[in-house]
Order: sequence, then C-alpha cells, then structure tokens
Amino acid sequence: MKKVIIIGYGPAGISAAIYLKRAGIEPLVIGKDLGALEGYDDLVENFYGLAKPIPGKELIRNGIEQAKNLGIEVVTDSVISLKMEENHFIVITASKSYEAKSVLLTTGKTRQTMTRPGFVKYRGKGISMCATCDGYFYRRKKIAIVGCGAYMQHELEYLNRISPDVTVFTDGHELECEVKNPVVKDKITKFVGTEKITHIETKNESYPVEGVFIALGIPSSIEFASQLGVIVEKNNLVVDSNYETNIKGLFAAGDIIGGKLQIAKAVYDGMNVADSIYKFLTDKSKKA
Amino acid sequence: MKKVIIIGYGPAGISAAIYLKRAGIEPLVIGKDLGALEGYDDLVENFYGLAKPIPGKELIRNGIEQAKNLGIEVVTDSVISLKMEENHFIVITASKSYEAKSVLLTTGKTRQTMTRPGFVKYRGKGISMCATCDGYFYRRKKIAIVGCGAYMQHELEYLNRISPDVTVFTDGHELECEVKNPVVKDKITKFVGTEKITHIETKNESYPVEGVFIALGIPSSIEFASQLGVIVEKNNLVVDSNYETNIKGLFAAGDIIGGKLQIAKAVYDGMNVADSIYKFLTDKSKKA
Repeated sequence: MKKVIIIGYGPAGISAAIYLKRAGIEPLVIGKDLGALEGYDDLVENFYGLAKPIPGKELIRNGIEQAKNLGIEVVTDSVISLKMEENHFIVITASKSYEAKSVLLTTGKTRQTMTRPGFVKYRGKGISMCATCDGYFYRRKKIAIVGCGAYMQHELEYLNRISPDVTVFTDGHELECEVKNPVVKDKITKFVGTEKITHIETKNESYPVEGVFIALGIPSSIEFASQLGVIVEKNNLVVDSNYETNIKGLFAAGDIIGGKLQIAKAVYDGMNVADSIYKFLTDKSKKA
Repeated sequence: MKKVIIIGYGPAGISAAIYLKRAGIEPLVIGKDLGALEGYDDLVENFYGLAKPIPGKELIRNGIEQAKNLGIEVVTDSVISLKMEENHFIVITASKSYEAKSVLLTTGKTRQTMTRPGFVKYRGKGISMCATCDGYFYRRKKIAIVGCGAYMQHELEYLNRISPDVTVFTDGHELECEVKNPVVKDKITKFVGTEKITHIETKNESYPVEGVFIALGIPSSIEFASQLGVIVEKNNLVVDSNYETNIKGLFAAGDIIGGKLQIAKAVYDGMNVADSIYKFLTDKSKKA
C-alpha cells in the first residue's frame, strides 16, 4: 500500500512530490508517455528561472529528472481507472494496479475530445466521455465505444456487462488490444441524429447507435474523478482550500482545478497540496 | 517617468517583470549587486524545473538573464530611499534617482541587523533601524549612526538636520563616502545602558549616546516601506489581496509579505502582482 500516488508528472505533480519527499513521505508518481503530450512543444518563456526559453516537453523532462535525482519513484504508464475501496484507492494502469491511502490528480487540462461534425451537438445527448458514469442509462441498448487502446478496453469491459450489443470504433487507428466485440476500423466522419444521436457515419457506411462512449487515448483526471463522483464545475475539479475534493483522501492541483493555467500557479499548488496530503496522512496514522 | 519600478530581482521581482512585459508594460528592475547577497549559496533543490540542484545565486543570475533576454531593463544599483510626491514615487539609488507611477517591493527577507551584545536588548529603546521614521524623537540629542556607505550617508543627511551632535560609527569598515561629522572606525563591541541605551563601546573606548541609528549595507524593503508609513506586522509588509500596501500604487510580493518563504510562492506572487499593477496603471490612465 502506497501512502500517496500522484497521477501526472507535470509541474504540479513533481512539485508536490518534491515537497512530500522532503516531509518524509515517499510518493509514487505515475505519468503518461511524453510522446502522448500534444501541445507541449511551445517554448516556455514566462516561468521563472529559465535563462533561455525551452520547449514545454523539455521542462517536463527536467522535472522528472529532478524528482528521480531526489530519489522519488517515477513510473511512466497510462492510468486508465481510479477506484475506491473502503479506506483506500486503487489506481489501475495499462500494465498493473496499485493501492494507495491517498491520491493526487495533477494531469492538467488536456482532454480527449473529437473535432468531428455532430460531436459537440450530441455531447450529452447520446455521446458520453465516461462509461462508468453514464453507462447505466444505456443498458441493453445499441452502444458504440470509440477507442483503440487499454483505456477503451477497460471501459468496454464495463459496457459489455450492461449491453450485449457494443461495437468498437477505432476511428482509423489500429486496434492495440484484443476484444471479442465487432470492430469498425474506418475513420468516423460524422455523428448524426435528431434530438439525440442516431447514427455514426464513416466514409462508406452509416451505423445505427443509441449511445456512444469516447475512450480515446487515456482518460483525463476529469474522467477519473467523474468515475468516483467528484464534483466538477466548468470542466474543473472542485477542491476546498486544502486542495481536497469532496472525496476524502483524493486531492487535485494544477490546471485541473482551474485558476490561472500557468506553470507558476501549478508549482505553487504542488507545494501547497503536499502540506495537505502530509497532514491527511499523519492525522490518519494518529487515529489508527 | 517610469510606469513601474520593481525593487529586487529575485524570483518575485523577475516573475512580475516577465508578466508585466507580456502585458505590454515596460518595467524597470533595480536589484543590488549579487556579491551583497548573503546566504544564497545553498543549493536549490525544491524549486520545480531544475534537473540538477544549483546554488541560489545562480538561479537569481539565470532569472536576471531571462528578463534581459526578454528585453526587460534591469539595473544593478543600491536603492537607498523611497519617497512619494503627490501622485508618483521617487526611487533614490546610490547613483541616481528615478520617478515612477507605481513601485513593487520584492527585496526578500534579508534584513540588516547586528549580532552584538546589547543590540536586541536596546532595539526600540534607543536603537532604531530607520532615521526618517524615528529621528524626530531624538532631535537635539547625542546621536550615533552605524554604517559606512551611501545608505548611511543618506540617513545622516536627515539626522544632521535634527541634531548638531551626530557621530558616524563605521564598525570596523572603511568609510565609503565623505562626511563632515566625527567618525569612529573601531569595531563596536557592545551596546550598553540601563532602561535605555547610554553608551556604545569599542575595544578601547566608551561613547555616550542617546540614540543609535543602524544604516549598514543597504536598507531592506521594510525600511523603505517604513519611511512611507506602510503598515508592517511581524516583520512583514501588510498587503491586500491585490498585493497592494496601504499606500496606493505601492505593491509588495515575495518573502517580504510573509507566508511560505519558498521560491515557488515568490514566483506565484510575482505572476499575480503583475496583474494588479497592470490594472492599477490602466485604470489610472483611463481616469487621467
């Protein structure tokens, strides 16, 4: 059982890890492969201490190296689900699962989305980003899941339990896992419907659907948190002044909680949330 | 007339300068010679983004270079006084004076002090850190001023106006400026007195005094701010949620306003105070 797992190794996550380590708590940091980071190639100019601007990815790499040099355990893996059991959390990655007394979400604001016609129109009207949150409403219906990797596979397991009719759409990608469901590998061109979604269209076909679940790439913290019933407002996880969500032991910091989407703010958050987690863990052990 | 002068080029000052520059405001940053920075040789490990720990001074140097590379005007000089005139400030350095619509103090927590016997005991009982604040209580009395450079000279000018009997104690240093007053170059060994201070002792002499003003090195923001009547609590400048002191247009950020004495917090402050200064300057120009 880990004391704390930090999901995300950007500025907020690494900063929290450094301060926790200094406080005598050994965190495990899990972050996704940097190749998956889109939009982090821009030069960072406005974060203090960089004599010369460096690409965002390089800064993130430096941060990871900094943590490792301080003896912090850092793992590159894709977290695909977060669960709770009585008084601890289970963090499921593409390759294994971990238990932890507390979890800190610092995965930033990048969110899986699709820029296809009809996506925005039917988002919430048949298109959902979270099988565990919304799947129940689609039981025994005609369901599509869009995705090709471990995250899709994980969500599919859940959907297979609620409906016998689930089709996988890889949206033009190769399937990276084994599934027993029917698979459509063509690129999706359009989501169509009336009041609610009725069809997914590819270049040559139109597939009738009643519900579509997006499980592209790996899920964002918003998705994890939604799975657990965390309050989300305006696409931000809602936290109190201790950076704790409405779920005890589940903390969040950085872009994901809103405010200024700046490295300086994420680093500041990381420093502060480390205090809160430290207090949470030490208060807990006192009670035990 | 400058729009804003930032005094101090540590993390808070440079961070504020970067964000102001980005907002289209050209700040002037004035910081003291790095040789004067004591206690900044320790390695910085806990500030995000440093793959390998670097000495504090090197980080500060990087910050200055970062600002210069972004086209920000950075000057190395010793600010010895801060004054107000109607609707602007006058910043007086050892070599010249500047006018500015607003001023940001980010000079950190280093404070001139003396670790000599009796110093703490008679601090506030005859020993003062600010001639302009407390000088009036010692008019026509027997006064000593401790210091050897431009700051001492500036404070001495004021004291010479309130008393004909002011002696300069260089405390073992060479005098770096010209004065007409009597000068004692011996090292001070002790401050003695009863309820209040009565004497300054050196190895071979005992000098009767009624008031002692410390003007060693260069003054801290606390000293500047005190000169203007800024509210100080527990050695912190008191600011509102916009980082503004009780004097309109005078802002402070970083260690000097208290809270966590961490680079992450200073950088965060710098980012935020830039917003406030921007608003102050643009609101002002709208009214004008």
